[in-house]
Amino acid sequence: MLATKHQNTIDNAVKANHERRFYSQYPEHPKAYGEEAPAKGADNFKKMLHQPFDQLLQTGAGSRVGEETSPYTLEKLGITYPAFTVSELVTNATNAARQWANTSATNRADILVETLERIKGYFFEIAHATMHTTGQSYMMSFQASGPHANDRALEAIAMGYEELQRFPAEQVWEKPMGKTSLQLHKTFKAVPKGIGLVIGCSTFPVWNSLPGIYADLITGNPVIVKPHPKAVLPIAIAISAIQKVLQENGFDPHLCQLAADSSEEPITKELCEHPLITLIDYTGGTAFGDYVESLKHKTVFTEKAGVNSVILDSVQDMDAVAQNLAFAVCLYSGQMCTAPQNFFIPEQGISTANGNLSFNEAAQKIKDAIAALVNNPKMGAGTLGAVQNDVTLRRAQDAYTLGGKVLLQGGPVVNEEFSNARVCSPTVLEVTSADQDIYEKELFGPVILIIKTKDTSHSIQLAKQLAQQHGAITCGAYTNDAVMKEKIAEEMNSVFTPVSFNFTGFIWVNQHAAFSDFHVTGGNPAGNASFTNQEFILKRFVWVGNREVVGS
Amino acid sequence: MLATKHQNTIDNAVKANHERRFYSQYPEHPKAYGEEAPAKGADNFKKMLHQPFDQLLQTGAGSRVGEETSPYTLEKLGITYPAFTVSELVTNATNAARQWANTSATNRADILVETLERIKGYFFEIAHATMHTTGQSYMMSFQASGPHANDRALEAIAMGYEELQRFPAEQVWEKPMGKTSLQLHKTFKAVPKGIGLVIGCSTFPVWNSLPGIYADLITGNPVIVKPHPKAVLPIAIAISAIQKVLQENGFDPHLCQLAADSSEEPITKELCEHPLITLIDYTGGTAFGDYVESLKHKTVFTEKAGVNSVILDSVQDMDAVAQNLAFAVCLYSGQMCTAPQNFFIPEQGISTANGNLSFNEAAQKIKDAIAALVNNPKMGAGTLGAVQNDVTLRRAQDAYTLGGKVLLQGGPVVNEEFSNARVCSPTVLEVTSADQDIYEKELFGPVILIIKTKDTSHSIQLAKQLAQQHGAITCGAYTNDAVMKEKIAEEMNSVFTPVSFNFTGFIWVNQHAAFSDFHVTGGNPAGNASFTNQEFILKRFVWVGNREVVGS
Repeated sequence: MLATKHQNTIDNAVKANHERRFYSQYPEHPKAYGEEAPAKGADNFKKMLHQPFDQLLQTGAGSRVGEETSPYTLEKLGITYPAFTVSELVTNATNAARQWANTSATNRADILVETLERIKGYFFEIAHATMHTTGQSYMMSFQASGPHANDRALEAIAMGYEELQRFPAEQVWEKPMGKTSLQLHKTFKAVPKGIGLVIGCSTFPVWNSLPGIYADLITGNPVIVKPHPKAVLPIAIAISAIQKVLQENGFDPHLCQLAADSSEEPITKELCEHPLITLIDYTGGTAFGDYVESLKHKTVFTEKAGVNSVILDSVQDMDAVAQNLAFAVCLYSGQMCTAPQNFFIPEQGISTANGNLSFNEAAQKIKDAIAALVNNPKMGAGTLGAVQNDVTLRRAQDAYTLGGKVLLQGGPVVNEEFSNARVCSPTVLEVTSADQDIYEKELFGPVILIIKTKDTSHSIQLAKQLAQQHGAITCGAYTNDAVMKEKIAEEMNSVFTPVSFNFTGFIWVNQHAAFSDFHVTGGNPAGNASFTNQEFILKRFVWVGNREVVGS
Repeated sequence: MLATKHQNTIDNAVKANHERRFYSQYPEHPKAYGEEAPAKGADNFKKMLHQPFDQLLQTGAGSRVGEETSPYTLEKLGITYPAFTVSELVTNATNAARQWANTSATNRADILVETLERIKGYFFEIAHATMHTTGQSYMMSFQASGPHANDRALEAIAMGYEELQRFPAEQVWEKPMGKTSLQLHKTFKAVPKGIGLVIGCSTFPVWNSLPGIYADLITGNPVIVKPHPKAVLPIAIAISAIQKVLQENGFDPHLCQLAADSSEEPITKELCEHPLITLIDYTGGTAFGDYVESLKHKTVFTEKAGVNSVILDSVQDMDAVAQNLAFAVCLYSGQMCTAPQNFFIPEQGISTANGNLSFNEAAQKIKDAIAALVNNPKMGAGTLGAVQNDVTLRRAQDAYTLGGKVLLQGGPVVNEEFSNARVCSPTVLEVTSADQDIYEKELFGPVILIIKTKDTSHSIQLAKQLAQQHGAITCGAYTNDAVMKEKIAEEMNSVFTPVSFNFTGFIWVNQHAAFSDFHVTGGNPAGNASFTNQEFILKRFVWVGNREVVGS
């Protein structure tokens, strides 16, 4: 037993969760992981290609599945994963549950941090796996699926560790009764809710899955992980590391199972509807998310689509703002749930430190900054990464048919390293505030809309309405006016949308930092859960108190 | 502004919520409230009869409603309450919301504790009002609607006060960037979810409503209180006290509104379905509770019906056990959601310190203890109180037709003070374990079933299944065997039902103490919420974080 090996890490993470200052257990610089790790990871990844994935401790699979294709090479990875029936997965989870439920929060936390340390040893394998399934750049793949995901996992472990110890395990309750008293011995148990299911997405297969996986595990629930069939490898590597540590510590590795399936024979609905699956974490499109939320007798945590706005009122330096926004738009080709889509600019333009900029001039600066970034040979391809799938690619390619005025037509960008890469630079459309049928939809991928409004109050009104009706995960805002800033904050916060003000330089609205930023508020249609607030943990177990007369 | 007047009370309550020892801010002895208070309360109650209730600060009602009847006199109270349309109620709440939302948690908590102190001044009026609407005995009316309800309210205030300060209001996030760093100024706001609706029941109009009312208010939400049309007065008095304190402190009294309606023209569904009502607390029957839980885009907290079991395995002294159970059964004629209904006894009987007791002997002892209590002229009528309504009375009177063997036929019991009182002593039926169609229903009121099982494991299996499928709020168990005790705890806790072991003497399974016992776990069909765990508070607001580049 590793008991208390990681106590310091856990205590620091608990403190960080409270304080919400900058905190990171896993550095985001590849160099922090040793000189040889990157090459070794790349090499191991290559060895996995065109082979059965054999690192899992799940045996007895009736068949194998595998259909991943690299967005960079457009070639199949050729890796197959063991496939199990829903019944097998649920039975395995049920068999593993009791021992884990009866394990203390301290021991669970310690073992789970050990699993993160084990995953750390595979960060570079996971980086390549992420790159060649999601289309993220190498650096983003490394950071998002490696240190950032592990930090988010640790955040969930720490939140769970603390909440599980919120109330005493036992207590004597003594009621004064005149000259005597009545004593009850009470025990308080955090009883796990059942079996968890974590449904992954094709763009962030690790970052969006680890919080649910670790939230389920720290609270004593076994978890079944159903990745998107086009992005299995990154999370399969993480799961294999988790399973090994569980087994080494005397637990059943089936506490955390991979449930790989195929696009042709998906098992997700059957899993969702199984009566013993009581917890569901879901990341993905709104239609399936609404289905998950509608299921009865399930506790669900969703992150669905949203329409993120940028409100431009006034700026110091429009060039700095445009560069910042251009990067936010181009980063992973707008395939982040936090990427801005709708840019609201008043028809009279934007005031700057150097005088007023007309609407057209402001739009032009944004367009030019995007074009400059895309065409920068050192920056363009690396920032854009690749488009994960053909549906997103076609949406971007056809964006010019949506209506409005095409300010910038997206198209192919050369990737020097991967000549076949599925790349498409952003399309920028100018529309009017009346074109709600265009801008009220999430246009996932490299498409942005610049919307002409009457004034900033009108911009706020539209952004608020979009967030309320269609969801929003982020909102960027630029203003030099303290009163307007307060108004934007109050209005957007009232629809449970956080605002990032006046971002320029090396910080972008897309980024949510573990231990500080709540990712998704849970309050609008973009999702009902938040990484990682207390609800994300508390809903996974039930406090039950027993009482006994002392001396009985 | 009262700021910090009650800081000590709040701090002690926060500490009590954590420790879960015996704690009470409001003593349960009437004597604690002064010699003259009881008579003054009785007198004031009489003055309210046959008058319009004029203590509310809600004006402009289009009509008045009132249909309460005393279960003790069977006479109408003749009190009328102002009635408002749903639209008026929601508009009033909306207008009151913003100022309260922008008030600090400290100020809110302080004002809310002041409202409890004001309510304290009406404890005896509320006691008589409760007695003559619910049928509870005078002492129970005083305790349940007075000090116990206020303690539960304070518990919710304290839980909210603490949770609202869980994260810093502002923080600087500084990310090291090599030789420089990046600074963001972050703010974290607990944004109230909207307007709360608290739907009361006819048996515990104050105790079951105050937690939701105070949970809504402490988290910044206005609340509309829709009492059962047959039990308005007790909560109307409490609301009038709340409104006065709010107004005295410069707030809109419509932050807490009474929404009285009539049985003929109920407004509950219209309130539930109003898009601006986002939070619903409900206590009552399962059918309406299931409707409330099925509403989309609402956060709901329910306490519905359950079937509570007692598992008899082995005892020290069966007479002491039978007396304890008899009181638990007779208390308020089984009209408590915590009252035991199904008594599981193995066919081979129960072992005691004085040898084995056969099934029939054990059943006989329970029956005899109930009969002795009911027929005790000093105890019977006072313990039973009165039956709240005719539906419950008929259910009890007709219980002998359910099937099984009638061990004890319930019937009228003389109440010396109120000769017309609607009183019915418990009916005891013996059934077999195969009679699930009889014992799987909640038989609200004075009806209990003694169920013959194969052995204690069989008893556990049936009690567990009932809790899982039909809900349970309590479970009593008697065993001298440590292994069996552990098994009962584990099995019942696995269906999220707390167990009270070996209760004899002056403590009964029906009682849940504020600051220590979670009332309803939220994990089985008896209800989805718990007084007062963190979820009961956290689901009422959303953490939203804004960020700004420092120096922008």
